[in-house]
Amino acid sequence: MTTLEVPTDGLFGLANLPYGVYSVSGGQPRVATRYGDYVVDLAVLLDDDTFDSPSINRFMAQGRQRWVDVREQIASLVTGDILAAAVHTLDEVTLHLPIEVADYVDFYASQYHAANLGKLFRPDNPEPLLPNWKHLPVSYHGRSSSIVVSGTGIVRPNGQRKGPMDPVPVFGPSTRLDIEAELGFVVGTESAMAEPIPVEEAENHIFGAVLFNDWSARDIQAWEYVPLGPHLGKSFASTISPWVVPLLALQAARIPTPTQNPEPLPYLRMDEPWGLDIDVAVEWNGQVVSRPPYAAMYWSPAQMLAHLTVNGAPTSVGDLFASGTISGPRKEQRGAFIELTWGGAEPVNVAGERRIFLEDGDEVVLTATAPGADGTRIGFGEARGRILSAT
Amino acid sequence: MTTLEVPTDGLFGLANLPYGVYSVSGGQPRVATRYGDYVVDLAVLLDDDTFDSPSINRFMAQGRQRWVDVREQIASLVTGDILAAAVHTLDEVTLHLPIEVADYVDFYASQYHAANLGKLFRPDNPEPLLPNWKHLPVSYHGRSSSIVVSGTGIVRPNGQRKGPMDPVPVFGPSTRLDIEAELGFVVGTESAMAEPIPVEEAENHIFGAVLFNDWSARDIQAWEYVPLGPHLGKSFASTISPWVVPLLALQAARIPTPTQNPEPLPYLRMDEPWGLDIDVAVEWNGQVVSRPPYAAMYWSPAQMLAHLTVNGAPTSVGDLFASGTISGPRKEQRGAFIELTWGGAEPVNVAGERRIFLEDGDEVVLTATAPGADGTRIGFGEARGRILSAT
Repeated sequence: MTTLEVPTDGLFGLANLPYGVYSVSGGQPRVATRYGDYVVDLAVLLDDDTFDSPSINRFMAQGRQRWVDVREQIASLVTGDILAAAVHTLDEVTLHLPIEVADYVDFYASQYHAANLGKLFRPDNPEPLLPNWKHLPVSYHGRSSSIVVSGTGIVRPNGQRKGPMDPVPVFGPSTRLDIEAELGFVVGTESAMAEPIPVEEAENHIFGAVLFNDWSARDIQAWEYVPLGPHLGKSFASTISPWVVPLLALQAARIPTPTQNPEPLPYLRMDEPWGLDIDVAVEWNGQVVSRPPYAAMYWSPAQMLAHLTVNGAPTSVGDLFASGTISGPRKEQRGAFIELTWGGAEPVNVAGERRIFLEDGDEVVLTATAPGADGTRIGFGEARGRILSAT
Repeated sequence: MTTLEVPTDGLFGLANLPYGVYSVSGGQPRVATRYGDYVVDLAVLLDDDTFDSPSINRFMAQGRQRWVDVREQIASLVTGDILAAAVHTLDEVTLHLPIEVADYVDFYASQYHAANLGKLFRPDNPEPLLPNWKHLPVSYHGRSSSIVVSGTGIVRPNGQRKGPMDPVPVFGPSTRLDIEAELGFVVGTESAMAEPIPVEEAENHIFGAVLFNDWSARDIQAWEYVPLGPHLGKSFASTISPWVVPLLALQAARIPTPTQNPEPLPYLRMDEPWGLDIDVAVEWNGQVVSRPPYAAMYWSPAQMLAHLTVNGAPTSVGDLFASGTISGPRKEQRGAFIELTWGGAEPVNVAGERRIFLEDGDEVVLTATAPGADGTRIGFGEARGRILSAT
């Protein structure tokens, strides 16, 4: 038996207890929690086969009461004597994608991001937001198979692009490779066809949240996206953080969203505060270039889930929906480089170089923290990716 | 033992031998082929556990040489004495979704459909096709979880819509519920991230084809789709036929696509004929209202797969990509009611009623046939769906 010494002021204390999937050399991936810098095997800790699994999907499917009960059990057990076989340190393990992703939807829920892109792409239009934007959380489906865990190399995508001066499209590696700093929300329990999930039921379905980097090839996207939306400009890769922070750990982070005016249609109205006071940071080659505030997001995750099921679409265990780029009102709060550099007109200084988009070898790391229970703060770990040369 | 009497001029003879999943009362879903009106259990017929599975994914993953070998074995065995336990009749079984769907992408590959929608939605634009259309097969991701098998009831979706005269959006059941008659192509073998599938490798990845009805709520779609593309207007349901017709059965149907001018970029060029001479029929309440010719499709399935992976996106066993609405040059060849009725201006006569969009209780059935080996014709079965009232 062993006991774990974990500082009470760290980001992975008892107020966090996220879920992830790890393996040690030669072993099968299994479910763990992170406590301090320890990775604690939950099948061993809890003596429960649910966690002898390569994803957390089986556990999530058991529903919210189990999420509550298991969280209490973990908190109780990690502070006592535990089997040494349950314990690894972070540097001993490989972390894997924590969920088996079913359907993936990306939203567009930041008013500042949507308005910035409107000004950049439709400069002649006096109203930067499109007419539907304040009535519904605009969104689209993305590719599930290219969602990868933090640390996976991101190969620069090839594709078609056509600049305003090009007579015909050209093919080659993207020259405008960007990020989008987002949160992703993990759906833990399924819902049936023709049975929408109302806002007030969202807590029974949303299991937790991860950091999400929606890598974006702006040149490919600009040429392809009319009229059916983004596809190849996004589908090459998205990076998530390895630890799913439970919604149960985010109760202290819940705040009202910004005022929604006009008042949304009844199916989008909220009785509970569903905004999230999460501070995100974007590091570019080791330098923080932006601090997007999740608190500024206009549409909440409960509204996103209510909207995406209101037409009767069923959900599955492991569905993932992302927030869209998190941008705040100030320049240094913009979560995509196309905004941060204003389409390239205002390069940013990254370690002494003037930069606009990503170059091969660049590394981007997203991190985030939020208020936890009892005045603590909790961390999301990181979503890290380095750009590799195009094939 | 028993022998199967199957007419040589039917649509499900030896030239077809599609794959599906069936169950009998109380039993588990298992993989079968259809021979005439018999449903033949392949685990029993071939004495092979691969087919004791609720989807054909496990078999597909074994790769093209197995697809060739198993097809030959089936053709040999179904014409001899076979175990009675392998044989059911169509009316004894329930047919299920044949594949476990991974990522789903919908294309927009008919020049006539794209041009018709261009004229309807952008009447002031002298060029109905958008600038990118002839350079790349335009496409977007859709929802996998709402893909259902033929016969599943389609609940009319609720959603937001805003007509040109509405001061604010209204919420309620869609009033412009439409179909899109398409083919869906099933990906049988996976490909890795950053390893595109060139056109000449498509045969090793595309396992077969199904009928696909991309039910579409035009009012919801029109309000939501700018700038990120269709979502709720489509994601409530798509219907596929229960039998996957192998690409190996479609060799006699392969024809050149229409001339592609301008010549596509090199990664989209084809050395083999990849068009498909498949005749589709759309029945509305028992009356054939349209006969879309797949032969008229501009972009081929090999080009679609090459395009959707050219940026490095990985594919999974069970990926499904659909063609987009199949429309030919003539009015009676249009595969969506919005085109067939020219946005409602030209109602069609359906069993004595003037109709534009779908009413509750309406039933739509897609069927298709194609040339098979040795002068035969083969069938795709049907994709059937009846509209149920909104919840």
